[in-house]
Amino acid sequence: MSSEFGKNLRISIFGESHGAAIGVVVDGLPVGETVDLDALAAFLARRAPGRNAMSTARKETDAVRVLSGLYQGKTSGAPLCMVIENRNAHSNDYERLRHIPRPAHADYSASVRYHGFSDPNGGGHFSGRLTAPLCAAGGVCLQILNRKGIAIGGHLSRCAGVDDAPIDSLRLTAEELAAVAQRPIPVLDENAGMRMQAAVQAAKEQGDSVGGVIEVFGLGIPAGLGSPMFGGVENRLAQAVFGIPAIRGVEFGAGFGAADLRGSQNNDAFVLQEGIVRTKTNRHGGVLGGITTGMPLVMRAAVKPTPSIAQEQKTLDRQTGEQTALCIAGRHDPCIAQRAVPCVEAAVAAVLLDLMLDGEYARL
Amino acid sequence: MSSEFGKNLRISIFGESHGAAIGVVVDGLPVGETVDLDALAAFLARRAPGRNAMSTARKETDAVRVLSGLYQGKTSGAPLCMVIENRNAHSNDYERLRHIPRPAHADYSASVRYHGFSDPNGGGHFSGRLTAPLCAAGGVCLQILNRKGIAIGGHLSRCAGVDDAPIDSLRLTAEELAAVAQRPIPVLDENAGMRMQAAVQAAKEQGDSVGGVIEVFGLGIPAGLGSPMFGGVENRLAQAVFGIPAIRGVEFGAGFGAADLRGSQNNDAFVLQEGIVRTKTNRHGGVLGGITTGMPLVMRAAVKPTPSIAQEQKTLDRQTGEQTALCIAGRHDPCIAQRAVPCVEAAVAAVLLDLMLDGEYARL
Amino acid sequence: MSSEFGKNLRISIFGESHGAAIGVVVDGLPVGETVDLDALAAFLARRAPGRNAMSTARKETDAVRVLSGLYQGKTSGAPLCMVIENRNAHSNDYERLRHIPRPAHADYSASVRYHGFSDPNGGGHFSGRLTAPLCAAGGVCLQILNRKGIAIGGHLSRCAGVDDAPIDSLRLTAEELAAVAQRPIPVLDENAGMRMQAAVQAAKEQGDSVGGVIEVFGLGIPAGLGSPMFGGVENRLAQAVFGIPAIRGVEFGAGFGAADLRGSQNNDAFVLQEGIVRTKTNRHGGVLGGITTGMPLVMRAAVKPTPSIAQEQKTLDRQTGEQTALCIAGRHDPCIAQRAVPCVEAAVAAVLLDLMLDGEYARL
Amino acid sequence: MSSEFGKNLRISIFGESHGAAIGVVVDGLPVGETVDLDALAAFLARRAPGRNAMSTARKETDAVRVLSGLYQGKTSGAPLCMVIENRNAHSNDYERLRHIPRPAHADYSASVRYHGFSDPNGGGHFSGRLTAPLCAAGGVCLQILNRKGIAIGGHLSRCAGVDDAPIDSLRLTAEELAAVAQRPIPVLDENAGMRMQAAVQAAKEQGDSVGGVIEVFGLGIPAGLGSPMFGGVENRLAQAVFGIPAIRGVEFGAGFGAADLRGSQNNDAFVLQEGIVRTKTNRHGGVLGGITTGMPLVMRAAVKPTPSIAQEQKTLDRQTGEQTALCIAGRHDPCIAQRAVPCVEAAVAAVLLDLMLDGEYARL
Repeated sequence: MSSEFGKNLRISIFGESHGAAIGVVVDGLPVGETVDLDALAAFLARRAPGRNAMSTARKETDAVRVLSGLYQGKTSGAPLCMVIENRNAHSNDYERLRHIPRPAHADYSASVRYHGFSDPNGGGHFSGRLTAPLCAAGGVCLQILNRKGIAIGGHLSRCAGVDDAPIDSLRLTAEELAAVAQRPIPVLDENAGMRMQAAVQAAKEQGDSVGGVIEVFGLGIPAGLGSPMFGGVENRLAQAVFGIPAIRGVEFGAGFGAADLRGSQNNDAFVLQEGIVRTKTNRHGGVLGGITTGMPLVMRAAVKPTPSIAQEQKTLDRQTGEQTALCIAGRHDPCIAQRAVPCVEAAVAAVLLDLMLDGEYARL
Repeated sequence: MSSEFGKNLRISIFGESHGAAIGVVVDGLPVGETVDLDALAAFLARRAPGRNAMSTARKETDAVRVLSGLYQGKTSGAPLCMVIENRNAHSNDYERLRHIPRPAHADYSASVRYHGFSDPNGGGHFSGRLTAPLCAAGGVCLQILNRKGIAIGGHLSRCAGVDDAPIDSLRLTAEELAAVAQRPIPVLDENAGMRMQAAVQAAKEQGDSVGGVIEVFGLGIPAGLGSPMFGGVENRLAQAVFGIPAIRGVEFGAGFGAADLRGSQNNDAFVLQEGIVRTKTNRHGGVLGGITTGMPLVMRAAVKPTPSIAQEQKTLDRQTGEQTALCIAGRHDPCIAQRAVPCVEAAVAAVLLDLMLDGEYARL
Repeated sequence: MSSEFGKNLRISIFGESHGAAIGVVVDGLPVGETVDLDALAAFLARRAPGRNAMSTARKETDAVRVLSGLYQGKTSGAPLCMVIENRNAHSNDYERLRHIPRPAHADYSASVRYHGFSDPNGGGHFSGRLTAPLCAAGGVCLQILNRKGIAIGGHLSRCAGVDDAPIDSLRLTAEELAAVAQRPIPVLDENAGMRMQAAVQAAKEQGDSVGGVIEVFGLGIPAGLGSPMFGGVENRLAQAVFGIPAIRGVEFGAGFGAADLRGSQNNDAFVLQEGIVRTKTNRHGGVLGGITTGMPLVMRAAVKPTPSIAQEQKTLDRQTGEQTALCIAGRHDPCIAQRAVPCVEAAVAAVLLDLMLDGEYARL
Repeated sequence: MSSEFGKNLRISIFGESHGAAIGVVVDGLPVGETVDLDALAAFLARRAPGRNAMSTARKETDAVRVLSGLYQGKTSGAPLCMVIENRNAHSNDYERLRHIPRPAHADYSASVRYHGFSDPNGGGHFSGRLTAPLCAAGGVCLQILNRKGIAIGGHLSRCAGVDDAPIDSLRLTAEELAAVAQRPIPVLDENAGMRMQAAVQAAKEQGDSVGGVIEVFGLGIPAGLGSPMFGGVENRLAQAVFGIPAIRGVEFGAGFGAADLRGSQNNDAFVLQEGIVRTKTNRHGGVLGGITTGMPLVMRAAVKPTPSIAQEQKTLDRQTGEQTALCIAGRHDPCIAQRAVPCVEAAVAAVLLDLMLDGEYARL
């Protein structure tokens, strides 16, 4: 249950940051669906570092190799396995860190959980690198959803204290989402993007890092997906999205802001538009009672600042029991929030496709 | 998968607001655990309306009847089934609302999902009333956790725009949590509670409702619970907590606030205190990499304002296709956030006990 | 995971033999389905003792009370909870047996598993009585399947060494299955039934018990249900059917007999009949590669002789560590195989409906 | 849910017979366990063809490559992914068979299930080749179990109508099981093995195939593993074992034979031996009420004759709608039962380890 999610569509992720390879098995995809591997590579490239000055210059080429599940280019019903070979073989760079847990990393909690046997190199299975197979799986789901008229896309709505222009989900189009995805920094307002980049750069120069907020939208989602209580859209989305390292909060529609509204402000009036039941406003973010309303899905996720910073930090040497100073070497991202945007999109796509495959909707 | 959660501890909730009875089956409880039914009733009473001027004066006596799973007062290993009979038999009060979906309620999405067959009375299975069996299940878990030195408790950290005094998780004691739980309004600062109550009252007088934020803490949780990626503490907590109607966001530790911090501000330094690895600060909220660190768990959940308000609202009559005005009669809570505090505690307790039962921790 | 099964249709059973009540929660039923409670009672009556000389004269009236999940007589999408009150309150009849495990019962293994806290009365949660809620759940599924043209029914194909007439699945009709179900002993050949009864009676007079084999058929099942490997029809059926106490083996089609056939004998030739792909023979029992072929499902389950016998038996007194003689008082069934027929039908019906709800079949 | 099983130990298998590679992800293994890759290769070799005259001379070298989950030779807690590259790339040998379903194969049912998109080559994901990754996963589990004093091993108890010598589970030792595993044909009585081989050879010469029965034992299993009803040892074992293609029946202890016994014959008396509760006989096969008793586990599985035979067979050409004659070319095994022995052992090992990891046993 650790690195898997999904009910009908089962996604199982494996690999460590510096192991032989990372990858994913996707079991339960609808059949006869073409997988465009070039489009998938392009989607994964959005997650890769080096696209802009906000991420590390370190190069990762995440070439996806399909081991199974496609026949003549289409999903065959068999589990789809995709593998990405790692370039960095196991080194001993991290061996000396075994007893010096990095602040805000999983080093300490993982060592307790796994009795000291977990792979420390680059964070092992806890590495953000594991979001590459998530993107591979979700990217395939996105292609299928797109064909059904569903678009999933997001932007970096806030980063290093700088806000992107607000996006009105009621007017948003799939084309606009696609345009945002093309940009080096996934924002609506490129000006805001430049200010974010400058702020990230400033933090980096101080050996520091920043966080951000990702806002993701789903357009064209049919009404009636999801279930009450624990099988709802929010439950399943949150379960998946919190699987992305560094996510600290998830909210839907007006989210935490709803706590400060009155009912008369927060309630969205139902209206009939071109024969379709819609709401005039979308503070509910497309989900009521755990079930989609047909209105755009609106979800936000908070990304903490990258834990690895160049500044010297205080931490504990567990071997000596003494305080020690830690300097984390290597080229780390001063911000990962922009790279996490396609990861959140991928998680949302996978959950939505899973929701669409729920057989319980059927009236036999 | 709709009304169930848990892996080792499986919780399955049933019932409708105006049906014969509501209840829960809890499968997988540790055996030999005494269930104090009086303490459980007291816990459920915290959720019941009528405790203060913030909730409806409507009386619900949620007497729990145990159908199975206890033998000589102790958990026997068999599934524990608890039932609460409903006093309100099926009426036809809601029949006329079948085609007039209430804003911010699940009426519309549920009718699509269930092809018009769902029980509309009082929201049916979507009613907040279904959190009573959740409290029953979680209340039993709480008793077990308490015996193991784990305390779970929360406060209404914000309501109607009024903040409770901040709680410092590093200094918090189980006794303080217990004291907060005793108060009519679960706050640390009773003065703040009175201001909240006044604000709620003001909204009520205008036929309106308000929301709030619940903050829950877990003390005494051992390090090493949870798993990376999708089986982590946040994933499983969020999946459960979003099962409580009206929750719109969930965050851990610094949460959305972490997005505005720098790494040097957000990273918690590890220290050794009385031989135990701890962190000097607790912005991580007790979880790193999906795994507990042994520091206090800190989680917040946003509660939207009660959707049912006395004010006239615009909505759609799906039969005529026309806009119509809707007045929701009956005694509805102007705020449910304070009643949701024990519900969130219950969900957290159930997930924590489930996490503790994960066999994978074992080093055979 | 102990008393639950199903993927889309989740069935969770609770109760102990002498507890307050037994029951079941069925989550995920298709909506808008009428539940005929009289027909359900008639189905449950087939499981009740006292229908013929083969079972105990002990009376159990298993009146099902619906707590939730029906609205205006139809499934509403909310979990269906059905409860059967127990007449036998907790007694201390079994208390003295706590340390004297009955041979072939779960007394010993359960006491280890549950650290001595399990309810010993009448076998507690291990009692065959728990098949009553299984029948309630499966009986509802059967009604739904029947409406879709699927008939599930079985016979006691062998009992106390006496064979019923063989049933040719290729010629079998739903009417014949219904006729068998009406009989006091569910056999095709009533003569064989009388010989079975005589053999059971003979065993009973010697204070002994007998076993039998149940053969169940499914007619009208569409081709294409199920999945390869671990999600196949056999896997899911076997998982459910072994949930019925006393079942010791499960086989499909030619079953263990296939081990003695040659490929040329066992392979069923495909033919086209009235435009439908069928097989000329049905040694495969309606399932190939875990997936239904559209041919009749054929499954057999072996039922061991009732463990409780009147004869004196040797067993261990765990308190003294000495061998002791055990005489099991009370009116026990000399054979339970005939009562288990509707239980197996119920399990098969529940699994088939669950299989039909698998969303993965969808070509989106 | 198709190619996965397990609760704490999650096993997810991928690949097609002629695809790029086959493999498995094992999530939830206990940590710090050494994986001996040479011993694993030796275990997989028992499944490979070409060990004796009973299987095809076709060579398959199933070299396992570990992609993740091991660190410094030990399980690290991260999912273990093992991959076996295929030598046979996708060919079009099977393309012409697309509309000519092979009798007793999944060709037809899979084509309905997957809307004609499944990979037909060599049976695709339905191929017996997919048991190689099952053996890889189970082989790792076996190594872990062995270290805990648990031995799992089986023999070909019957093949082509020839019985192996009976094995008395009460006297069986781990050494005897190991000796059987070393033999080219896994039997106790090598004479019987030679007669089996002769019978298989005779069938082969007639272009035919044969089936067999596999009997597997588990020694050293602690009492108290498993759960009542649907989470029992039999349920979980059967669910896994039916995942091996060609298995048509599964039974425990006296199995179908128990149906012909009387209670006085079938009941195993409890005794105390060297301070341990045991039974004098072992007709219950080590499981009562779904829970282990500490006595040897005894399970048998029926294997049907290999569906692919050289003899001409009648089948349907779905394109023309006409009957046609089918000759299956290639070097197929005249018997797969002997090769399935390690597969069943692997499935049993995986389920047992999963059962041992059940956290519910814990008395907190």
